[in-house]
Amino acid sequence: MQFNLIKTDGSARRGEVIANHSTIQTPAFMPVGTQATVKSLTAEEVKSTGAEIILNNSYHLYLRPGLELIKKAGGLHKFQNWDKSILTDSGGYQIFSLSSLHKITEDGLKFKSHIDGSIHFMSPEIAIETQSAYGADIFMSLDQPIPYGATLKKATEATELTHRWAKRGFDVYDKSTGQALLGIVQGGFDGELRKYSAETLSVINFPGYAIGGLSVGEPKEVMWEMLPIVTKVLPQTKVRYLMGVGTPTDLVRGVMNGVDIFDCVLPTRMGRNNTAFTSLGRLNMLNSKYTEDFLPLDPNCGCTTCKNYTRAYLRHLLKSKEILGVRALSYHNIFYYQNLMKNIRQSIESNTFKRFAKDYLSFGDENGL
Amino acid sequence: MQFNLIKTDGSARRGEVIANHSTIQTPAFMPVGTQATVKSLTAEEVKSTGAEIILNNSYHLYLRPGLELIKKAGGLHKFQNWDKSILTDSGGYQIFSLSSLHKITEDGLKFKSHIDGSIHFMSPEIAIETQSAYGADIFMSLDQPIPYGATLKKATEATELTHRWAKRGFDVYDKSTGQALLGIVQGGFDGELRKYSAETLSVINFPGYAIGGLSVGEPKEVMWEMLPIVTKVLPQTKVRYLMGVGTPTDLVRGVMNGVDIFDCVLPTRMGRNNTAFTSLGRLNMLNSKYTEDFLPLDPNCGCTTCKNYTRAYLRHLLKSKEILGVRALSYHNIFYYQNLMKNIRQSIESNTFKRFAKDYLSFGDENGL
Repeated sequence: MQFNLIKTDGSARRGEVIANHSTIQTPAFMPVGTQATVKSLTAEEVKSTGAEIILNNSYHLYLRPGLELIKKAGGLHKFQNWDKSILTDSGGYQIFSLSSLHKITEDGLKFKSHIDGSIHFMSPEIAIETQSAYGADIFMSLDQPIPYGATLKKATEATELTHRWAKRGFDVYDKSTGQALLGIVQGGFDGELRKYSAETLSVINFPGYAIGGLSVGEPKEVMWEMLPIVTKVLPQTKVRYLMGVGTPTDLVRGVMNGVDIFDCVLPTRMGRNNTAFTSLGRLNMLNSKYTEDFLPLDPNCGCTTCKNYTRAYLRHLLKSKEILGVRALSYHNIFYYQNLMKNIRQSIESNTFKRFAKDYLSFGDENGL
Repeated sequence: MQFNLIKTDGSARRGEVIANHSTIQTPAFMPVGTQATVKSLTAEEVKSTGAEIILNNSYHLYLRPGLELIKKAGGLHKFQNWDKSILTDSGGYQIFSLSSLHKITEDGLKFKSHIDGSIHFMSPEIAIETQSAYGADIFMSLDQPIPYGATLKKATEATELTHRWAKRGFDVYDKSTGQALLGIVQGGFDGELRKYSAETLSVINFPGYAIGGLSVGEPKEVMWEMLPIVTKVLPQTKVRYLMGVGTPTDLVRGVMNGVDIFDCVLPTRMGRNNTAFTSLGRLNMLNSKYTEDFLPLDPNCGCTTCKNYTRAYLRHLLKSKEILGVRALSYHNIFYYQNLMKNIRQSIESNTFKRFAKDYLSFGDENGL
């Protein structure tokens, strides 16, 4: 994997990630395919929104269908019929959030499957092995997430452990395959600890860096306070990925703070929740005001949902619990996100990002984006 | 609407229905779009299976989103983005099977919505008005279904009422629009009454005829006993539609008995039930034998599901309750049905239908088709 920083506009960065399966124009958004499918959509549909990379969740796939099966299938790309790039996470975050039993030792994490209760073990080395066997283009280090509200002592211990695990993963990963391992900055919500984490990991010289442990329940201002502390320290020449973020306005603010890559389940989750992100703001399509509204979902959008269906029809489908309603909204929302990233990239190219961000945020903050 | 009988091969008929929105090659299968969507699929996908006509259910659409809304949307075609033909049923069958209260009088049917308990009234004339306002290409007369096991007296009364309602609908429907009203043969499971019903309706000279009240729980032999009694009486020059039937082998037997058009929810319902119709028979894709099976769902099928996904991936999606699994199977099943109809049509054209049917049934009966 290679990252080229093409241009900056203030702290915003226009670049490209050359990964094994595709070149990703940044700033970029990765749709999330938790269980080897971006929920309700085909790979062709996801591709047609402009996505050049998706994220798959190691934890889910490790438990079902299992690593051995995916290896036999020829890797994650073949298994799910996706020929662009894939980033996998380490599984650490889901082990903490979904599995009922997790015991942290210096070695790694012992955990219980949320599906069948079986006991498993994950170490920094196993995390690399697993992601490598999946055939992912970009791997993530195993880290220890820090809940919002943790004491500084706990946060420091977890951050130090994350650093040691990062080094162990870095040492064992095969640098000759073109696959890239990203280190994950932790540090909780203490500025000094965040800075220390970014500095420590920078020394390891990863191909790129992720910023973890944000958007975990803290007030948004706290996230925007932490983020620039980290991005100022991380090397300019390396890609930065802000994990699990966020709303459309979060993406704009992330770029404003020097972030290159994002991922979030929001566009598909909101689609399943009858909600659309549009040029008119966030719309709840169950609202009775759409009953006889024969306009497109978003009159300023060129996606197939907006070309083919009226709001009245979409509302009918969603009220009737028809799968097509979920599909149509999920598709539109991912298209909306990809289109936003395209607009962000263009505004950086033309040195107008600051203006673009100001306009977008002043409307978006008022209208649920 | 016009029906051209192009060729016969034994009792099997090769024809075409020229309807307002498309020409339908017969024998034909109509996918069912109960709530103005063929479950889980887009109109484009349904079209790409080769379908030239779909069925929409009047009862469901009358209650939700309601006739007025569909009228304002510009009719059912525009509402659901489907530009080929549409056949609507009268709603009678669903009134009997879904609504909790139904009172039959000479005038019509009083019934209670299964959605909100509201009270409604349907008459033969209202059934025509409704379907006409939907903008459907082919309408169905309001009829009184007869449960399997009804006494001859009850069956006779219901059949006579169906005849009177058929005449009332025929008298009020506008013959100048190109839209066609089909009469529905009833008669329960008494051969004489079935024959009488077909004869009585034939006199009205409908543009086409449906055979109703079969596949309602009776043993299959009883259906195959009743069917030829009816098709021998119905005029050769008119299209015949066997309502709500059936499995792939049912379709072959239906054609063998002179039927031109079929509809059934089976391909999509089975898709949602993890089941596929294939050249290898009926497959339950949750079966553990597919866990590491990297063959296509049906190696002899050219649909996108079979081109893009392995059985192992489909099983993973279905086990994980992912919508894409349901989509993929529903699409394949409808494609399978359309492909079967194509093969049936070709075999009639080449005078080999008898042979085709024999081979298909001998395999299909053994393999759950």
